[in-house]
Amino acid sequence: MTPGVLLTDLYELTMLEAYFAEGMDGSASFEFFVRALPPNRNFLVAAGLAEVVGYLTDLSFSPEELAFLAQTGRFQPPFLESLGSLRFTGDVDAMAEGTLCFPDEPLLRVRARLPEAQLVESRVMNLLHYETLVASKAVRCTLAAPGRLLVDFGLRRAHAGEAALLSARASYLAGFSGTATVEAGRRFAIPLFGTMAHSYIQAHRTEAEAFEAFARAYPRDAVLLIDTYDTERAAQTVVDLAAKLARDGISLKGVRIDSGDLGAHARRVRAILDAGGCTGLTIFASSNLDEYRVRDLVAGGAPIDGFGIGTRMNVSADTPYLDCAYKLQEYDGQPRRKRSEGKATWPGRKQVFRQVDADGRALGDVLALDGDSVPGTPLLVPVMRGGRLVAPLPTLAASRAQVQAQLGRLPPRLTDLDKASPPYPVTVAPSLRALADELDRRPP
Amino acid sequence: MTPGVLLTDLYELTMLEAYFAEGMDGSASFEFFVRALPPNRNFLVAAGLAEVVGYLTDLSFSPEELAFLAQTGRFQPPFLESLGSLRFTGDVDAMAEGTLCFPDEPLLRVRARLPEAQLVESRVMNLLHYETLVASKAVRCTLAAPGRLLVDFGLRRAHAGEAALLSARASYLAGFSGTATVEAGRRFAIPLFGTMAHSYIQAHRTEAEAFEAFARAYPRDAVLLIDTYDTERAAQTVVDLAAKLARDGISLKGVRIDSGDLGAHARRVRAILDAGGCTGLTIFASSNLDEYRVRDLVAGGAPIDGFGIGTRMNVSADTPYLDCAYKLQEYDGQPRRKRSEGKATWPGRKQVFRQVDADGRALGDVLALDGDSVPGTPLLVPVMRGGRLVAPLPTLAASRAQVQAQLGRLPPRLTDLDKASPPYPVTVAPSLRALADELDRRPP
Repeated sequence: MTPGVLLTDLYELTMLEAYFAEGMDGSASFEFFVRALPPNRNFLVAAGLAEVVGYLTDLSFSPEELAFLAQTGRFQPPFLESLGSLRFTGDVDAMAEGTLCFPDEPLLRVRARLPEAQLVESRVMNLLHYETLVASKAVRCTLAAPGRLLVDFGLRRAHAGEAALLSARASYLAGFSGTATVEAGRRFAIPLFGTMAHSYIQAHRTEAEAFEAFARAYPRDAVLLIDTYDTERAAQTVVDLAAKLARDGISLKGVRIDSGDLGAHARRVRAILDAGGCTGLTIFASSNLDEYRVRDLVAGGAPIDGFGIGTRMNVSADTPYLDCAYKLQEYDGQPRRKRSEGKATWPGRKQVFRQVDADGRALGDVLALDGDSVPGTPLLVPVMRGGRLVAPLPTLAASRAQVQAQLGRLPPRLTDLDKASPPYPVTVAPSLRALADELDRRPP
Repeated sequence: MTPGVLLTDLYELTMLEAYFAEGMDGSASFEFFVRALPPNRNFLVAAGLAEVVGYLTDLSFSPEELAFLAQTGRFQPPFLESLGSLRFTGDVDAMAEGTLCFPDEPLLRVRARLPEAQLVESRVMNLLHYETLVASKAVRCTLAAPGRLLVDFGLRRAHAGEAALLSARASYLAGFSGTATVEAGRRFAIPLFGTMAHSYIQAHRTEAEAFEAFARAYPRDAVLLIDTYDTERAAQTVVDLAAKLARDGISLKGVRIDSGDLGAHARRVRAILDAGGCTGLTIFASSNLDEYRVRDLVAGGAPIDGFGIGTRMNVSADTPYLDCAYKLQEYDGQPRRKRSEGKATWPGRKQVFRQVDADGRALGDVLALDGDSVPGTPLLVPVMRGGRLVAPLPTLAASRAQVQAQLGRLPPRLTDLDKASPPYPVTVAPSLRALADELDRRPP
């Protein structure tokens, strides 16, 4: 998966060379967090940790990568030599994938030698940001369509190849049933789904011939795409075909509608199928869907059994990025605070404590310093020590179940698609406020 | 670059198996096009062809990939065996990268055996869509800031790794000066740029120590980040440092501002630097920039020499996807037309003719059938024949120059950031309209 250690910003390497020249090799703690919730989100779903662990575990410079850096003429030979033996030997604490989380809360904390913790900034952000973005969008689709089949259809308009793979993973984590992207099925053991394209219909002399040929090739599984020419006419073609195929022991699985007013078409198609005795055929819908359109279709009573959701989920169309950061919070035992306008950070190594009521329902989170004695469950748990996993990560299936369990414990207003008021309470512990105030009084 | 042939939708493979069962192996023509311009675009910049050619050239199934397909239980052994020898042996005609283009115009045409042309749909779209999306966004940044240095800063919030690499490439194609992403510099020979992060400042005891250490590590190139604590105070620190360093023969290159009101800070910083004799130091700005903010800063006379533009460009934040398609237009010598509501296509194998006036200024395009005799320059040119390149592709530098040349020949209203009225004229040739009408009269 990883395109290598040079998938980093140039400044990480120039800073590393400066640290090398200065002998700055102390222990540094960085934290990844999201500064604010986007307008249309009540919570986020932490995701991407498995890829981050893979990246950190494999981190090293190949001879070819070092040769490239050498020929840029920017770096001195002793520094490049030091990179040759660089590995990630630090500690990682993080929220488990699938944890529902909120602004200012660290999703991941890296504590390592300064050069190691610095170098990994760009790629750690690149992975955590994207999977968290998509999981946080996809979970809204599942909230909009409880009990319906949801399938990731987004490879073609995802932002290049790795996004297609990781959005299949993140949406499955969030509760989707599977994906159409074959390689994602292979890498992550996600169930695969597929129907047929318009081109298949068009390549045949008639739609009826195309339907029949496909059904004979897949005698139990065929989902026929019925909107290439005239949706209702095609539904009648399906009814006629089903009777003919039944005599040969072949059954159809369903139909797909991919254009027009999906709710209106689905109702008319359902009526045609039922009148023709095809009550068992399912109706699957796709075409520029997202949680809002799915909600409207479900609310309108559309007889749609499943949805193919692509582009708008994969690119998180209403919020295509999160305002996230990976910031130094402590160096050499001293807490640090960035004070830039509008971008100030909470200093020090932190922990998030989730407080629940007697029924296990989440009441709120407290952002505190690591080691503070605060009631509640600490959400950041040890993941790596000395560059190695402390225990196998939860499986994707386990993380997926965790999302569902946590959704059930959120205050119900937060699982609405609209903005919740009041938002989920996240409070800052007095110890942390005091530390921030103290650092603000120091000169630059 | 390519994550392999299984980066495809499942339905491509199930359709291929049905074609295999039916012996459907005729010549098929598919076209990739964008259905409509997004609200904030007057034109698009075609990009992604080089990656598509690489993908088609390398297309094959490895034994491991075939073994995965076999163990899904979905496919019959004779079909899987046929995949083992599948290669792309078809023809590709396409617009050169960097061509300015418009809705309904094919950017790329594939003519190949039906299974080959079908299989590649998902990944061809995935690559062309994303690079065209980014190039079309990035070019607007260059129009907003003529003569300024523009650098891609977007790795961390690009949608995973491949998007970071391809957006560095697409933005350079569109006219950016370079990127911060090291691996993109290596793969595509794009100039690299970088400054320093807040963490570098924070890891030092004082800002002044950090500045000096960095300048001594990079005695000609240092761009110092001055907004970690107090921007104007840091600018004065830079002035004091510059005098001290000059005595050691060390010179600074510039400063970077990354928060707050960038225009106001830049003016105050410029004044402090100039008053301190640092007239040669440049001011570089970053922080959630896009073409709109850059335009406003430039219009306001902000003394900013260069911009780092990341997230909003890499994810094309105002328009995070294009409504694009890859559709069958001809099979076995017969033109085809999809007639789905709102998604009908222009049938047949097509060509785009660009008509210019005596000064070479673009007057409009004509969408016609391939082989039609239409005045103007045909924009789709032969790229591959029989699965091989007919000639080396233009270099990235040549394509980049092509963008600039074509911008100069566009009607000036189109290079404005606001929506042009009237839009660029694209007319449909009578032959093509007649063919579409004829196909519409046929039964499904």
